[in-house]
Amino acid sequence: MIQFSNSIGKLTGESTLLYQDIARRVEKERGIKTINFGIGQPDVITFKEIRDKAKEALDQGFTSYTPAKGIDELRQKIAEYLSIEYKGSDVKKEEVIVTPGAKTALFLSFLLYINPGDEVLLFDPSFYSYAEVVKLLGGNPVYLNVNFDEKSGFSIDLEDLKEKINSKTKMIVLNSPHNPTGMVFSPSEIQGIQEISKERGILLLSDEIYDHFIYEGKMRSVLEDPEWRENTIYLNGFSKTFSMTGWRLGYIVAKKEIIDKMGILASNIYTCATSFAQKGAIESFNTFNHVEEMISLFRRRRDVMFEELSKIDGIKVYKSSGAFYIFPDVGGILERTKLSVKELSIKLIEEAGVITIPGEVFPLELGKRFIRFSFAIDEEKIKEGIRRIKETLDKS
Amino acid sequence: MIQFSNSIGKLTGESTLLYQDIARRVEKERGIKTINFGIGQPDVITFKEIRDKAKEALDQGFTSYTPAKGIDELRQKIAEYLSIEYKGSDVKKEEVIVTPGAKTALFLSFLLYINPGDEVLLFDPSFYSYAEVVKLLGGNPVYLNVNFDEKSGFSIDLEDLKEKINSKTKMIVLNSPHNPTGMVFSPSEIQGIQEISKERGILLLSDEIYDHFIYEGKMRSVLEDPEWRENTIYLNGFSKTFSMTGWRLGYIVAKKEIIDKMGILASNIYTCATSFAQKGAIESFNTFNHVEEMISLFRRRRDVMFEELSKIDGIKVYKSSGAFYIFPDVGGILERTKLSVKELSIKLIEEAGVITIPGEVFPLELGKRFIRFSFAIDEEKIKEGIRRIKETLDKS
Ligand SMILES: Cc1ncc(COP(=O)(O)O)c(C=O)c1O
Ligand SMILES: Cc1ncc(COP(=O)(O)O)c(C=O)c1O
Repeated sequence: MIQFSNSIGKLTGESTLLYQDIARRVEKERGIKTINFGIGQPDVITFKEIRDKAKEALDQGFTSYTPAKGIDELRQKIAEYLSIEYKGSDVKKEEVIVTPGAKTALFLSFLLYINPGDEVLLFDPSFYSYAEVVKLLGGNPVYLNVNFDEKSGFSIDLEDLKEKINSKTKMIVLNSPHNPTGMVFSPSEIQGIQEISKERGILLLSDEIYDHFIYEGKMRSVLEDPEWRENTIYLNGFSKTFSMTGWRLGYIVAKKEIIDKMGILASNIYTCATSFAQKGAIESFNTFNHVEEMISLFRRRRDVMFEELSKIDGIKVYKSSGAFYIFPDVGGILERTKLSVKELSIKLIEEAGVITIPGEVFPLELGKRFIRFSFAIDEEKIKEGIRRIKETLDKS
Repeated sequence: MIQFSNSIGKLTGESTLLYQDIARRVEKERGIKTINFGIGQPDVITFKEIRDKAKEALDQGFTSYTPAKGIDELRQKIAEYLSIEYKGSDVKKEEVIVTPGAKTALFLSFLLYINPGDEVLLFDPSFYSYAEVVKLLGGNPVYLNVNFDEKSGFSIDLEDLKEKINSKTKMIVLNSPHNPTGMVFSPSEIQGIQEISKERGILLLSDEIYDHFIYEGKMRSVLEDPEWRENTIYLNGFSKTFSMTGWRLGYIVAKKEIIDKMGILASNIYTCATSFAQKGAIESFNTFNHVEEMISLFRRRRDVMFEELSKIDGIKVYKSSGAFYIFPDVGGILERTKLSVKELSIKLIEEAGVITIPGEVFPLELGKRFIRFSFAIDEEKIKEGIRRIKETLDKS
């Protein structure tokens, strides 16, 4: 067989699929319905107004290629929206590119900057695709300590950040609200990172895809710094806020020279995002009433999940402030059962019929003592799932 | 400003945009409507049945992530269709991945195989993205001679191919029907390439996206070789055949191990293709009656374009057998006017108000004497456009 390129060997592969496979087997063999806390998207369908707008575009025959950077009307809407949301950011249409999902936005950003051997600073833990793509492009992920405290949650170690910057450091990836911890990092942490990165001439990539999923406190966007153009790539998308994961629509904001280069990459890699999906997304900016309802629903679910998880022995849990994940420290259970977090997750599927994501999926170290629970699932299932987990753990 | 990665500098950029910019200026300054022979997509909207199916999927809330390789039903349909179309190919669902357009299919294929320094054999001329992506990934395009004869059209030089293969050669990219020449290469040429590539252990990437645009002769697919799994990546898409360019749907067929790796790349680069667009594409396999009508229409247009172009002095034109392009040799005009093909194209926009694509956009050498005309535009405009060109040239 003809050999793959060398960098392909560096990929970890799709580790979350393993758990779905086990779940399917369990459902078959034991005839029980599994409960899925592994979900990474809201469990509502895309709001009707948005779907209707896409249907209208289909009726009107809006089925051709669009410009590589997206249709003007959508780029304009995004720029206007952000300029209002973050006063002083003054984002212009020319500073926006629409991409087929935030994941592609991430890929373009890494592709545009990373040379083999470059270091990219990632939070430990962080969304798994960051490290995978950095490695694929020959870069080296370097992990920043994130500290956990049951009372105050997760925090960024700015001293550690300063120490880990060296001449090879190209980029820092920031993500708040944060996957997998559900933490909305404090404004001073965000500002701290932004200042350090500017001082040291390092690119700051800020993935703010969970920006509307805020339950406590106020999130700070990197766009609130009027000097954002100096070194910032802002990244967002429609997937989570408007429950549009299947539409494949994300966007990048950066200064025009960067966006122009990304347009050239886009035209060679994927041409453009789906035409009539882009039309639908224009309507999303009129649906914030639905978003607010969804967030209230998610807040209640978070409260329930927190209450229930708190009842389990050996778990230290912080009531997450954002996104739709809770990331409890299960170190006590691991010590008692002598299991790794991965083995624990597998046990929970096999014995309790409950899918969770073991923290080790999110590199590198911290996650080995944590499990990610998504609360994008209804209240009754949250109660039932955690009841089953408790029962299983009480027996072992 | 923070530096882009080294490979970004190797990109040529979006050269076809230049011509659209000039056209806009001409329309404004001279108040004339330009005629566009630069079009790379059918000028009909996507067939209603397909649009209806996507609308139905939107109504049903099919708006979530799909598996990275595409929805099962679509992969199955593609496999079945190809197995019937090319008896003996026996394509299985597991050997198909659905991608956001054929362009992304190309990108994944190059990304999966190319190491820096690898050579990739491309036809001279060829679709511009091939060379761009190869260079972006650190590979080196090596160009194969394509010969032109006014009577018999374009042909592949198999001796040249054999000579250009060396230990660095990783891949050959085949494209028939061919962009930009409009040539359907002969079965013996296709088989020749397939045999040479198998013998030499080189990957064969076959881009068959124009497979339904056949006006003369019969096209041969690489899937007709029952041993295709040995070294072949087959690539196709919905963009051209069903006029679905804005839907962003393409696919790759290769042996399962390759498709599995591509799935991992997909999940890190873009997650999946648009969910409800995939549903629509399932319906496309029931719309071949419309495809046939479209092809008849395009055949008439080709005839008209050929007739009209033949009347121009200094042009040698072959009546293309496939795709929707005619690629005449304008060497006679260039000699007489002392213009480069790029200058000639610009002159045609500025003085005749007609957009064409100069062959030099399609690397490397041959195109410097040719211009690409697309006949995905109505008959009256074809006549009017070529009349205007003739007038302009008669004056100079
Ligand atoms: C932190 C983070 N960034 C980006 C993405 C990708 O989102 P999209 O669906 O827009 O590609 C996700 C999805 O899980 C995510 O959690
Ligand atoms: C030869 C060739 N391959 C691939 C493509 C890309 O098609 P898609 O729209 O599926 O990305 C084109 C489009 O112009 C093409 O001409």
